[in-house]
Amino acid sequence: MTGPDRSSLEDRAFLEDWAVHSRIGAVPGTNGVDRQAATAADGEQRAWLAELLASHGFTVRRDEVGNLFGLLELVPGAPYVLAGSHLDSQPTAGRFDGAYGVVAAAHACFRVADEVRAGNAAARCNLAVVNWFNEEGSRFKPSMMGSSVFTGKLPLEQVLATTDRHGITVREALDTIDERGAGPVFGPAAGREVASYAEIHVQQGRSMEEDGVTIGLVNATWAAHKYEFVVTGEQAHSGAALMVDRRDALLGAARLVVAARELVDDFAPGLLHTACGELNVYPNSPVVVASEVELLLDLRSPSAEVIRAAHDSLMQTVDRVRREDRVGIEIRAEHTWDQNPYPEAGVELAREVAEELGLTHDRVMTVAGHDSTNMKDDVPTIMLFVPSVAGISHNLDEYTTDGDLIAGVRHLEGVVRRLAQGAPTGAAPSSPAEVA
Amino acid sequence: MTGPDRSSLEDRAFLEDWAVHSRIGAVPGTNGVDRQAATAADGEQRAWLAELLASHGFTVRRDEVGNLFGLLELVPGAPYVLAGSHLDSQPTAGRFDGAYGVVAAAHACFRVADEVRAGNAAARCNLAVVNWFNEEGSRFKPSMMGSSVFTGKLPLEQVLATTDRHGITVREALDTIDERGAGPVFGPAAGREVASYAEIHVQQGRSMEEDGVTIGLVNATWAAHKYEFVVTGEQAHSGAALMVDRRDALLGAARLVVAARELVDDFAPGLLHTACGELNVYPNSPVVVASEVELLLDLRSPSAEVIRAAHDSLMQTVDRVRREDRVGIEIRAEHTWDQNPYPEAGVELAREVAEELGLTHDRVMTVAGHDSTNMKDDVPTIMLFVPSVAGISHNLDEYTTDGDLIAGVRHLEGVVRRLAQGAPTGAAPSSPAEVA
Repeated sequence: MTGPDRSSLEDRAFLEDWAVHSRIGAVPGTNGVDRQAATAADGEQRAWLAELLASHGFTVRRDEVGNLFGLLELVPGAPYVLAGSHLDSQPTAGRFDGAYGVVAAAHACFRVADEVRAGNAAARCNLAVVNWFNEEGSRFKPSMMGSSVFTGKLPLEQVLATTDRHGITVREALDTIDERGAGPVFGPAAGREVASYAEIHVQQGRSMEEDGVTIGLVNATWAAHKYEFVVTGEQAHSGAALMVDRRDALLGAARLVVAARELVDDFAPGLLHTACGELNVYPNSPVVVASEVELLLDLRSPSAEVIRAAHDSLMQTVDRVRREDRVGIEIRAEHTWDQNPYPEAGVELAREVAEELGLTHDRVMTVAGHDSTNMKDDVPTIMLFVPSVAGISHNLDEYTTDGDLIAGVRHLEGVVRRLAQGAPTGAAPSSPAEVA
Repeated sequence: MTGPDRSSLEDRAFLEDWAVHSRIGAVPGTNGVDRQAATAADGEQRAWLAELLASHGFTVRRDEVGNLFGLLELVPGAPYVLAGSHLDSQPTAGRFDGAYGVVAAAHACFRVADEVRAGNAAARCNLAVVNWFNEEGSRFKPSMMGSSVFTGKLPLEQVLATTDRHGITVREALDTIDERGAGPVFGPAAGREVASYAEIHVQQGRSMEEDGVTIGLVNATWAAHKYEFVVTGEQAHSGAALMVDRRDALLGAARLVVAARELVDDFAPGLLHTACGELNVYPNSPVVVASEVELLLDLRSPSAEVIRAAHDSLMQTVDRVRREDRVGIEIRAEHTWDQNPYPEAGVELAREVAEELGLTHDRVMTVAGHDSTNMKDDVPTIMLFVPSVAGISHNLDEYTTDGDLIAGVRHLEGVVRRLAQGAPTGAAPSSPAEVA
């Protein structure tokens, strides 16, 4: 362990880098950022990260889907402890979501690397930092794109051909910012393996803040059911057409949005979260009854039983809207998964590190998906949270205190150190979860 | 009147031109078109119309907002009988809406002009055909843009600076298709005045078809109240944020869409039409609770009292949604107008023409707005309908039979002939209506 002086310098170094990074893609007049995947702002922050990693002796590599890695070989031929998260953001979002995990991982790895290189610690593994491509899924769908390709859950070619609203492909967007690599960075072809994965993130909920917990030991993800609905009606003059003749796709879609919210009240408070965040209308003209509306709707719960009951109820609403409003409702895509655990040995390792550092801690579930949700099916994975003030997330006002940021980096450093020393973390669970 | 042989040749000439025009901007594999204002397809049909008008000796002029006129001076210095409608369409729309009125007006004027030039008829007025710019309002809002500038209801500079979804201004779009003129075509500066205005359109309803009526004598527009709502919430993670913490703008908007439909059932069938055709979500990402939704919502009724009662009820819903869903709801713009008559003398003139031609006719109200709604506040105006099969409108499958198209052109020809002879049509009503 480092002494207090060195710690203080390290904390300051992290906060300085954090302050510099937070200015990239900043939304003027706010505390937040807009750095959607493979935009100019994303290119800028990636160049910044690459320079930071290189300045600490890490070798920078991009794979074919734009995952950006910093590699440090301490033990020739040994597998790597991988730590990171994602730098991309939602539109007009907070500066902590994802980005904190990447900058924290870089600093945690720098510290452990310095120790090993100074001969003050042993290592059985090499170190790598990762910035996963497009975790947010706002510009290109689905979310968690980079880690899904990395873990073989999405085919590379399909992802590269995916377009944004303006018809720009992932391949074109990555090429525009010069962030598409030539081949894999890990795996047999690359001659490198991942031994374990660690990620830290702001909570995106307010339970830790309310409970006075500094380190969240993430032990499971919530169950969920996600739908892509297409509601079809028929174009008509929105003034002149008789109401009885109309087949209004936007009306059908609006009924689903309202029904999803009302489902929540059928269960005890906190047991079901529902949302529709994206809804696209065609032709979307003031005097035309809509012929097609696409909407993305989610159900999330700690309980898979609640998800199943809510799904059944939602399907009854779908049938009723089809019948009463004479619209077509098709489920173009859906994904469902049960509550999904993180490896218990990793949770225990993270708990020990928190005890060692004297940091308050508790087990928490994650409602949101993270790249670690993909990674945990392949390698021993540890997921950590720090508190977020009032749980504000995907919002310009997202905020975590410097004290919590610093504690989180310290804790991740402890986790990376143990993983680099080859601490047991439990195998990846045998039943892989679906990707959200 | 012309003899049967000449009539038959004239009918054929109209149908031939109509067939050629219908292929411009055609949507492949359908009977419909996509010719939104100042797009390439609009440029193509305007060039076609200009050539058609010129080939019949009409002088083609555009004004500063892209209204396209064909002028024929028969009586030097006399005012003009103006006839026309609009060529622009909604996205994926029918080929009749607006376009029929322009091509019918051209042929009606050609026939009357030929008679006068052949010395077979007298004229006190000159003749002009008009294609109004952007009646539909799908690309650039508001609708009826060209006739609103012409009648002084919208300022030219404001209209030219209006942008579409891609930030392209009306000025730029008109310049791209080379359809922006240098100055006014009518008015004191141009040395030309409009004596009267006539327009024919497909009904966009099914009452005439059901009643076996060929010519609709439009005697009034429905009352209406149109709103541009902005619902404001707060961005949040759509999975992780507690339901109780959310302020979901899309939920609030969906409740308004549903409420508007449910309002209809508070009144007798046919007394109230409501719609929301356009709704835009920000940031419109699958995992973000929307912070802002803009929606355009209309109430329409033959009865101003119904509109007032429906408005009061809608405002109660707005208050409830504000309170219960904790969202902001602002009315950014609204327009309301009472039932609005067309000049009675014009309706009577049109009735006499129908009688003369042996065409079935009836008085009908228009639910949709038309350029004649603007014109009737300034000059004696006659508005005519022909039937539309099943009332299908703003839809690729919109259809009117050749027989009804031909009858409509014949009828409009009779109206233009009488107007050119200086028939009394009644002054414009003294209380101008608001523009929709």
